[in-house]
Parts: sequence; structure tokens; C-alpha cells
Amino acid sequence: MKQLLTLLALFVIFNVSAQQTMSLKDAVLGASSYLKPKMPVQIKWKDDRHYVMVKENHLIAFNVQNNDSTDLISLSELNAALKEKGMKNAVLFPVFSFINESLIWFQTDNHLVIFNLDRKSVDSSFDYPEKAEHLDYNAVQGMLAYTIKNNLFVKGISVDQQITDDMEEHIINGAAVHRNEFGIEKGTFWSPKGHQLAFYHMDETMVGDYPLVDYMAREAKLVNIKYPMAGMTSHQVKLGIYNLDNKQTVYMKTGLPADHYLTNISWAPDEKTIFIAELNREQNDMKLNQYDASTGDLIKTVLEEKDSKYVEPVHPIVFSATNANRFYYQSRQDGWNHVYSCDMPDGKVTQITKGNWEVTELLGFDEGDKNLIFEATRENTLERQLYRINTHSGKTDRLTPDAGTHLGLLSPDKQNIIDRWTSTNVPGRVDLISSKGILLKTIAVAKNTLKDIDLGENTVFTIKADDGITDLNCRMIKPNNFDPSKKYPVIVYVYGGPHAQLVNKTWLNDARWWQYYMASKGYISFTLDNRGSDNRGREFENVTHRQLGVIETADQMKGIDYLKSLPYIDAARIGVHGWSFGGFMTLNLMLKHPETFKVGVAGGPVVDWSMYEVMYGERYMDTPEENPKGYENSNMLNYVDNLKGKLMLIHGVEDQTVVMQQSIQFLKKCIDLDKQVDFFVYPTHEHNVRGNDRLHLMEKVSNYFLDNL
Amino acid sequence: MKQLLTLLALFVIFNVSAQQTMSLKDAVLGASSYLKPKMPVQIKWKDDRHYVMVKENHLIAFNVQNNDSTDLISLSELNAALKEKGMKNAVLFPVFSFINESLIWFQTDNHLVIFNLDRKSVDSSFDYPEKAEHLDYNAVQGMLAYTIKNNLFVKGISVDQQITDDMEEHIINGAAVHRNEFGIEKGTFWSPKGHQLAFYHMDETMVGDYPLVDYMAREAKLVNIKYPMAGMTSHQVKLGIYNLDNKQTVYMKTGLPADHYLTNISWAPDEKTIFIAELNREQNDMKLNQYDASTGDLIKTVLEEKDSKYVEPVHPIVFSATNANRFYYQSRQDGWNHVYSCDMPDGKVTQITKGNWEVTELLGFDEGDKNLIFEATRENTLERQLYRINTHSGKTDRLTPDAGTHLGLLSPDKQNIIDRWTSTNVPGRVDLISSKGILLKTIAVAKNTLKDIDLGENTVFTIKADDGITDLNCRMIKPNNFDPSKKYPVIVYVYGGPHAQLVNKTWLNDARWWQYYMASKGYISFTLDNRGSDNRGREFENVTHRQLGVIETADQMKGIDYLKSLPYIDAARIGVHGWSFGGFMTLNLMLKHPETFKVGVAGGPVVDWSMYEVMYGERYMDTPEENPKGYENSNMLNYVDNLKGKLMLIHGVEDQTVVMQQSIQFLKKCIDLDKQVDFFVYPTHEHNVRGNDRLHLMEKVSNYFLDNL
Repeated sequence: MKQLLTLLALFVIFNVSAQQTMSLKDAVLGASSYLKPKMPVQIKWKDDRHYVMVKENHLIAFNVQNNDSTDLISLSELNAALKEKGMKNAVLFPVFSFINESLIWFQTDNHLVIFNLDRKSVDSSFDYPEKAEHLDYNAVQGMLAYTIKNNLFVKGISVDQQITDDMEEHIINGAAVHRNEFGIEKGTFWSPKGHQLAFYHMDETMVGDYPLVDYMAREAKLVNIKYPMAGMTSHQVKLGIYNLDNKQTVYMKTGLPADHYLTNISWAPDEKTIFIAELNREQNDMKLNQYDASTGDLIKTVLEEKDSKYVEPVHPIVFSATNANRFYYQSRQDGWNHVYSCDMPDGKVTQITKGNWEVTELLGFDEGDKNLIFEATRENTLERQLYRINTHSGKTDRLTPDAGTHLGLLSPDKQNIIDRWTSTNVPGRVDLISSKGILLKTIAVAKNTLKDIDLGENTVFTIKADDGITDLNCRMIKPNNFDPSKKYPVIVYVYGGPHAQLVNKTWLNDARWWQYYMASKGYISFTLDNRGSDNRGREFENVTHRQLGVIETADQMKGIDYLKSLPYIDAARIGVHGWSFGGFMTLNLMLKHPETFKVGVAGGPVVDWSMYEVMYGERYMDTPEENPKGYENSNMLNYVDNLKGKLMLIHGVEDQTVVMQQSIQFLKKCIDLDKQVDFFVYPTHEHNVRGNDRLHLMEKVSNYFLDNL
Repeated sequence: MKQLLTLLALFVIFNVSAQQTMSLKDAVLGASSYLKPKMPVQIKWKDDRHYVMVKENHLIAFNVQNNDSTDLISLSELNAALKEKGMKNAVLFPVFSFINESLIWFQTDNHLVIFNLDRKSVDSSFDYPEKAEHLDYNAVQGMLAYTIKNNLFVKGISVDQQITDDMEEHIINGAAVHRNEFGIEKGTFWSPKGHQLAFYHMDETMVGDYPLVDYMAREAKLVNIKYPMAGMTSHQVKLGIYNLDNKQTVYMKTGLPADHYLTNISWAPDEKTIFIAELNREQNDMKLNQYDASTGDLIKTVLEEKDSKYVEPVHPIVFSATNANRFYYQSRQDGWNHVYSCDMPDGKVTQITKGNWEVTELLGFDEGDKNLIFEATRENTLERQLYRINTHSGKTDRLTPDAGTHLGLLSPDKQNIIDRWTSTNVPGRVDLISSKGILLKTIAVAKNTLKDIDLGENTVFTIKADDGITDLNCRMIKPNNFDPSKKYPVIVYVYGGPHAQLVNKTWLNDARWWQYYMASKGYISFTLDNRGSDNRGREFENVTHRQLGVIETADQMKGIDYLKSLPYIDAARIGVHGWSFGGFMTLNLMLKHPETFKVGVAGGPVVDWSMYEVMYGERYMDTPEENPKGYENSNMLNYVDNLKGKLMLIHGVEDQTVVMQQSIQFLKKCIDLDKQVDFFVYPTHEHNVRGNDRLHLMEKVSNYFLDNL
């Protein structure tokens, strides 16, 4: 209880000169646009001594050591130079990267431009097709990889090569595979010096067609997708390497069974070998395999990691800049995500970071790998602080003194860090600190865009999980003009699934602004990160294995117990809302605790995990054949009979993540059992309702609580 | 006003010993099952002197002239005889037809059985495949036509022939065509003596696939249908004639354009020629063409009917039993549906019935075509009475003295009529009358199953249409324990489209029992048959041509004016509900009169006629290309901006009549314009929610009014 009070005191947001409450439009649309705290963009390192940013359409360089600044180029100057080469104006300063101190490259329209900042003119440029997707530029060779439909191409100033020529549209080259699980975000991987291009090749022809319908066409139109469901035949992925010199593609001999996962591709610095974190379909055995890039032969398995539940590789290995035989990798093998080094060829592994906390980001090494600079949850699971650890002694220094969530960008010489951070009362701030943690200067401070808006009190605290041991992070937002002698209704906003953490010490404690809107309407908002959620270690997450929803729900109910213990809570008026896994959780809570929850809104909910996809589904649930009991227990169709409160399901008609059949089958079961339930769909929307339509969605959700809770 | 009061007095339903109100279950499920008035079934003529009926599983014959009855056979005796031949028990007495006084035929399981009633044994039988559909038996030859998938077959005791062998599944033989418009209910037509079988052959290959999705499958499954939309390429139909003797099929040379409509097939008595009412795709020119059945050659156009709006043939011609050169046909050519005779070969046409009323059914002729016995709206558009007209003098006698809705079955010798009828206070009654209209005896009287249920007062009356001239039939149901000094909310139940009449002098004035349920909850129910609805003549219907929804809505608003003139109506609480065309009307009323309607529930609504099918759509609206203004004016998407009240759309996910894209596009427009709207779907259901799920539906509809109106 002592800890709880301390946190309360620390995290309370004070509003002194409040005048108005938050409108729904402000909450839904303003948060990502006109009320978003304004910060300079494209803050990055130009060289050891200078960082740059784009401010009011000027690219400005700042000296690290003093307050000198140089206006490198304005957008209008840039556009004048583009015009000279017959290119169209850029509306915003293009997203660019430095090639060296003078040269940057960027894409504009369908031009790849190398631009000389000193001369304020285009150094060189080439075009690529308008329909090109999955652009991936290698600045060393000046080569752009891209795809057209399902095939892969490479282009440079004097190069124009087609790498694959698959006629079958369901064989896809150069795109992200495995439904973007395992940290996969792209499908092409340039070798360090740009002589070779590794790429994913995915064969989906053996996966059945899944029918989506475009209802907005004059006549509704079939749009087939490939959506392998848990336990069903899955796609097959290979890794090809295209050699730009001999124009040959070699496929790595990754073997069988072909429905394994090829993840976290890394090139060796010498470009001769490539590393793949290969995971079996069962997801309990990961081998880091090294292949000969020129023959595709397996050289050896460098590392192997097994787990009785699952192994989930999400970080590619990183080679040492000073020792080509050493790489660093991240693993949760000791229960927490930590950094290890591995020395080749003997495979000697050394754990670098250690403790009951997690490394969340590697910034880099200084002084020839002497120190590792990283981001972690070491202080507090709500925060992200930057640290520097001596890789030999293990001595660790915290570099960021301010509580909050820090994101660091190490300078090329590893001497300085641009520290972008927010905290409960800090909407946004950028500091320059030395890699020893000394504050050099404050680069930017965002204004509080909500200072004139009266916000309900926002507190973060912990309660015990259902195991009686684990602390769970909670956030509560009280209604405006809170009066502790009154009784208030509560809306639990829930996600609860893996890979997410809703309570964070970012600005406003990471609250969705909709919660402030509901606070202005007299509703308490409550959110709890149950076991199964992210950044709390392996066991905290995988305790839910083969039984999704069970422990998560038990933990959420501890939150309800806590709420009910408060004198100002109206226990007869508790509602719950969540989307995706949070929709699944909404159903769990509504159906397993019908006496507790009066109103629920489940968006894009998983209803039955056997209708969910292979990669995510089988990791947490195994297959329906292997775990029939678990699937049965987590199948919301089996709990419909308990439904008592008002429940609305909402689904995007084009949802390709949680397919709409999940909701439709739930409705059918409700109808079969004569249970009234409400439903709404968002045509044209996929798994999330984005853009302006989100205002309509949140008005619908809000009205449902306002009318029924 | 005088007339109104008279009708009030006549049609009021009195409830004396009322005890309880109608439950929703009684209203929705009871009406068609446990509360349905019990009547003997299969009442039909055995011979000139006897009629039969099935009563308590006994087939009983009754003598016309006295009260003698004969128990012909019981179900258990029948089953014993079936068992002897190795056939399964029938659960209910099979639906049968007389071949002669002793023999009947029926289908049971997949057996066609000819049964001897005298000997109480199977006379003969043969089997047909279990998957057979579209069964059509010709008793003269003992031949059964049926289809398997898209092909046509014939079977008899010693015959087993495949007539068509189309491999392409979208070429369909022997099934109803043209989406069952134009009175088409079947796809096979036996020649009178059974030597030839005419059949529809429909080629849908040129119509695009329309995607429906079966969301109840383990993985959602595509179910393509053919749904040609107004103005789009339509299917093509031919009429084949298969000769059982020479086993040859000849197609009638019906010519081009091939997307015309072949309707109302009739054989000449000599089997040598066949008649087709052929309608052009524009539906404004109908030719009755006579074809040579053996060659397919067009012999001649016997009749032609044109109309600037549309011609809608729905009754096949009927040949005289005494003069093979004369046939009778029905037409609305003088503005009302009347009977004409046509003498071949000179084509002389004589109008038989005449007047500002409509013939609704032909029963037959007596005394060698001297008299025509028919059913008509002559007395009153709310009623169906039986009449006998002297075809020479035109002298007309009414045969049924009792007000109500009569359905007659003429005896083989044309001397007697079984008169089945209901009326406002008569749940069901069967009389035997002579063909001169003399009541011979009362065969059966149904008990009032609702006598212990307290029903709101149900009145029928007329008001003037928006043209100030036409009388429109209305029905109002007042709440139980009506107190004229109080103010009540109203729910308008609407259909409003062609081919339907909601206010009828049948039992309870044809009220949906749901209206009594809502009456028990304190809601007035109101229904008006606007112009455009059925049985009121050509102009009453086709005044809506090219502008669906406009005049219908204006007439409905006259009903609203009337309601508002009543002291006991709460004009601030008016709701509207309808399905299909009634869903379209609900949208019209909600969106064109947002100040009037507070709550609406539109089921399976047409939103935009350009998304409706060719046959029905183009009849009333022409094509979108021909009538862009009309389509625009009737497109509910163009009125969404007016939405003010609470509106719910409901759609069957598998709706093949009004496709769900209609509702989905409406929702999209609501979202675009930030209008809140509610929605629900019934998975697995087509255009209507049937079976037990209907209770869920009507509970949802009821709740919407109870909660919001």
C-alpha cells in the first residue's frame, strides 16, 4: 500500500488553469493532428559534431558543442533544385538519410534522389516505376530494390534488373512474410556493401482462398486473401540471395518441413554468409543457422534455443563493428530479454546484461565494444531509461535522470545521444546528453496542447495479480470535478494480449484521450496490464500459453475487486471496452463475469482461436488438434449462454487480421440461444477503423456506454 | 366520414372474456404453429359427389348430398401398405392427388406411389434419386420429371431418360427462370396427355458472379450466385420440348434479343402447339406466340399487348374444355384485371368480366362455358368474393353472401364449390355451396385460438390518397385498455410495394400478430396500402412507374396526417417498420420526413434500385441509363444527410433478393456524413428471417421501439 501511495503522488497530473473539457473530436481526431504536441522532425545525426532537424521547412544543423546552428537548406530551395531537374515540388521536406556529411538521399514522387547539401543541387537521380512497392535503397552501391506486384527488381543509375519472374500471383517475392510476426517488417536485405540482395520468397499457393467482399463496388466484388488458420496448411517461405555481379539467385537450403519460419535475417560483415533465425512450425525450437551466400549451403547452426512453451525471435543479430567474429543477440532465455555476445567460430556465449528487467532497445557500443548503450525497464516497468554497461565488468550507469520514457539516438562517434522523451507531465522533449549521461543541452520542448482543457485526474499504481505475488500496472482516470462522496460508473479499457503495454510513463500515462472524454461525462476509466502483456519477462507473458483469456481475465478481475473496494465506485455500473485481443477480453469479461459487467463493446474480437491465423495463434495456443481443451475453454461461443448485460460487437468488413466471421459466428450463437446482442460494421475498414471514420466509431462506442451504463 | 364510421362498426373485433395479453412468442411463433386455427387439411374433390379431407390422420370422404361419410383409409393403414412394399412410414398423411375415384398418387421418401384406396394397397410405385428436385408428375402417363443439379430427367415404371446433359453448372434446365417473376413458379410443363415435356433452359454464363459468403464454415466459404442488376447483362432463356416417344428435344425458335422473357407456358389441348407469353426486356410489349411443338417454328402471334409503362403477364392462358379453339386469358388492358376469351384461328377477342374491380382467380366454367365462376374484388377491395357470370349475357351473381375472403374449389361436374373463407371475426371456415350460391352445409369451423387473449381494438377504414381522390385502405390497432383521453405512440407497419396488400378482410383484418404485441405494450399500430400496392387496378399500381417511393411516401404521409388529427396520438412519438420494399419505404419516410419519424427499423431494405435485380427492377424503374433522374430520386443514399431519428437496418447475410451490399453502402454513407445508425445481421438467413430465429428478430425490433420511441 505504501508503494501505491508513492506512485499516486508521483504520477498525478495537475491541471491548474483548466477551462473546457475534452470534446470527442479532440480526443479522437485531435490527438493525432491538431492537438498533437509539436516537435521538430527528422532529428538525426549528420556527423560526429552535428545533429540536424527539420523546423518550419528548413533543414538546420546544430553544433553539439555550442549553440551554433546552420540553415542547410529550405524546402523551397530544395524544390527549386528538384524543378531544375524536371521533378515536382515536394509538399513536405522529404524523409532523408545521410550518405556522408554533404550528401543525402531521399525519394520523391518516383525519383530516387541523391542531393548535395553544400551545393544545394541534385547530385544524381534515377526513376523507378510508379507502381513500385517495398522500396529498399542501398546507399553504398546506389541500388534500389523494389517490387511490382509479386516480383522483385533492382534499379540504379545504370542498372535495371528483374530478379524474380513468378507468374503465379500467390508466389510473392521481396515482401514481408509470416504475416509480419517474429519482428519481420520487410522482405529485402542488402548485404553490407550492397553486392547482394537477400529476399523472402513466399509460396501461398497451398493455402486456401479466404473470401473477403468489397461491398462498395457497383456489384459487390470478391477479394480473395490467403488466411491460413491455426492447424491448417500454411505458406512456405524461402530466402533467396541475388548476386548483382553474376545476376544469379541462390536459395538457401533451409530444408524441410517447408512451413517453418525464416526470421531475423542478418548478413555477416564480409557478405559471404548470412544468418537466419529458423523456427519450427511448433515454435519451440529456434536455430540460428549460418548459410553460405554463394551456394546456399548450411555452414552450421550457431545457436539453438528451445522452450517447452515457445521461443519467439524478434531481434536480428548485430555484428560487432570492431570484431567481425563477434555478434550480439537478444534472448529471453534466462526469463528476461537480455543481450549476449557470441564469438565465432567457437560459439562462446557471454551474457552482457542481467537482472529481472528487460532490454528494450540497443543503441550501440562505444570504445570498441567496451560499453553497450541500451534502453531498458531496469528502473521501473512503466519507464524506459537509457543505460551504459561495461561489457567486461558489468558496471551499469543510468544515463537519463528524468523519470519517463526515453528513446536514444547515438552519434556516429558514440560520444553523444539525442534523448527524445516524454513523461506523465512532459508532452515531448529532446535533450542532448553525452554517452556518459551528462545533459549537454535541451534541444526542444513541446508545448502542452491540453493546458486549457480540464482533464480528469490520471493516476498510475499497481495492484497484485491473481497469483497474489505479481504487481500489475494500472491507470485510472477520474471524472472531471471528481467528488469522492459520489458514486461513479467505470469503463475498463482493456487489451490484455501479448506484445502490448497500455500503462506507460509517457505523456498522460499513455491514456487514450477518449478516456478523458468519458471522464468529462462522469465515467471513471480504468486500465490494467494483466499477465500475458509485454515487457515484463518471459514467464509473465507465457503463463497464458495454451489457455488464452483465462489468467488475463483472472487478473482483470483483481482490478475489478480493487475498484469495488473504492467508496466512489458504483459497482452496479461497470463497463468494458477493447479491440482485437481487447475485444476477446471484453467477451471473456462479459461472459465469464456477467454479474459484474453491465455493458461491453468488443471491437474486431477474436471469438474462437481456431479461426485465427497460424503464426500468432499456434504460438500461444498450439494447434486445435494438439490443444482441443484449451481451444474449447478459450472459445467465446461456449460462453454465450451466460450473456446478461448489453453487448455490442463491432467489426471492420475488410478485416484481414481478425476475420469478420469471428463476429458473425458469435451473433449466430447469440441468435441460437435467444440472447440479444448488438452489432455494427465499418465498411472498407480493416482491423482498425482509421481516419475520420474513427470519430463515428468512438461516438458509437461512447453512446453505447452513455445510453446503457 | 359516414363510410368510415360504418366500416368501424362492421370490422371492430370484440373481445369479451379476455384475460391475458399476447406475448411476443405467441405473436411470432404461435401464429404459424400452436396458435394457428386448426382446420382439416387436404380438402379436395374425389368425384362429383364426394369431397375428402384428412382429419386426425384419417382420409375421410363425405357425400355432397347428405351427411354420410366414409373413412377411406387411416395413416396407419397406409403405412402398413407401404411397409409391405419395403417403404418407410410416412409421418403425416402424404400430400396426394386423385387419378380416379379409386387411385391416388403421392410422393414419400424418394418413391412415387400409386395407391388403390379401395384395396388399401400400393398399386404400383417407382423410385427416383434422393437428390432429385423440381419433381413434376404427369398422372396420365405415369411419368415423373425431375432435376439433378442443373439437368433434367424423366422417370416412370419402365422409363428412365436423361433429357439434358449440360456440363456447365450455370446452364440450368427444368427449374423456374427469370427469378420467379411473371408468375413463374416451375420449370417443367407436361403436355396434356403426357407425351411431351416442355422445360425452361436458362443460360446464366454471361451474368457475372455475385459473391455471397458462408460465414458459418470453419473457414468462410465463397458462394457465388448470379444476380444481374438493373441495366446489366441478363441471363438468356429458351423453351425446350422433349418428346418421350422419339426422345428428341426441340427448342422453340423464340429469336432475339435473347434476354427477353418467356413466360406463362400453356399447351394446346391437342399437344401440337405451345403458347408462350413473350415479353421484351423493356417489358412494354408482350406477344402471345404459338409455336409448333414438333419443329419449334413460330406459327403466329395470337395476341399482343403494349403499354407505355409496362405489361406484366402473370396468368397462363386456359383452354376451354368444350371448344379446343377457344382459350381464356386475363389482362389488365382496360385498367383492371379481367377475363377475356379468344377464338382461334381468327383471334376474335371477347371481354367477359368488366368493371372497376379485379378478377383475382378463375375457378372454372360450368354448362359448356356458359358460366364462368371466379373470385374478385367486385364488392370491396378488402374482400374476395366468388361470382358466377353468364359469359353471354354478362349477368353476374355473387355466390358467397358472407363478408370476408373466399377461396373456392369447384367440383369436377362444376355443380358445387368448397368455399374456404375467413373474415375479421372468422378464424377459418369451410362451406359447401352450390355453384349457384346456395349454402349446402358447413364443412368445418375453426375455433378462435385467441379467445382468451386480450387484443387491442382492430379497425379498418379508408382515407384519401395524396391525389385527394383515391380511397386507401387502412388498419389501426389500438392499445389494450385504450383510453381516448391519453396520448399514445404509433408504429407504422409498411410494405407499400407492388404485388402486396396488407389490409384485408381476413381473420383479424390480416394484422401481423406482432402488432397486437406492441398494442399490449401501449403502441398504436397503423398500416396503409398506398398507391402502388396490389389488387386495385393498373393505374393505382403503375402511377409509381420510374419513381418508386415518391407517391408511396406521399400516400403514407396522408396516413400520418390522419393520425395526427386524432386526439389520442402522440405526434412526437411516431415510428416506422418494414421489410424489403417496406424497408425501402421505412428509409423513405425516415429520411424524407425526419421531423415526423422518431424511430425506424428497415429490414432487408432496397437502398438504391440500381443494385436491385433486372426483372423486377427494370419493370418499375426502367434501366439506370434510361431513367437516371428516377434512380437518383429513389436512391436513399442521397437522403442520408437528412437522418435525424434513431434508425436501425437489419439484413440477412445470405440475402439473395435484396443483397446485403444495399445496407452496407447505406452504412458507409452514414459514416461518411457522421450520422449514427444501427445495424444487425442474421447469419445464414436469406431475404427473410424464418423459423425460431424470427423470435430473436422481432424481439430486437420490438426493443428498438420500446427503448427509443
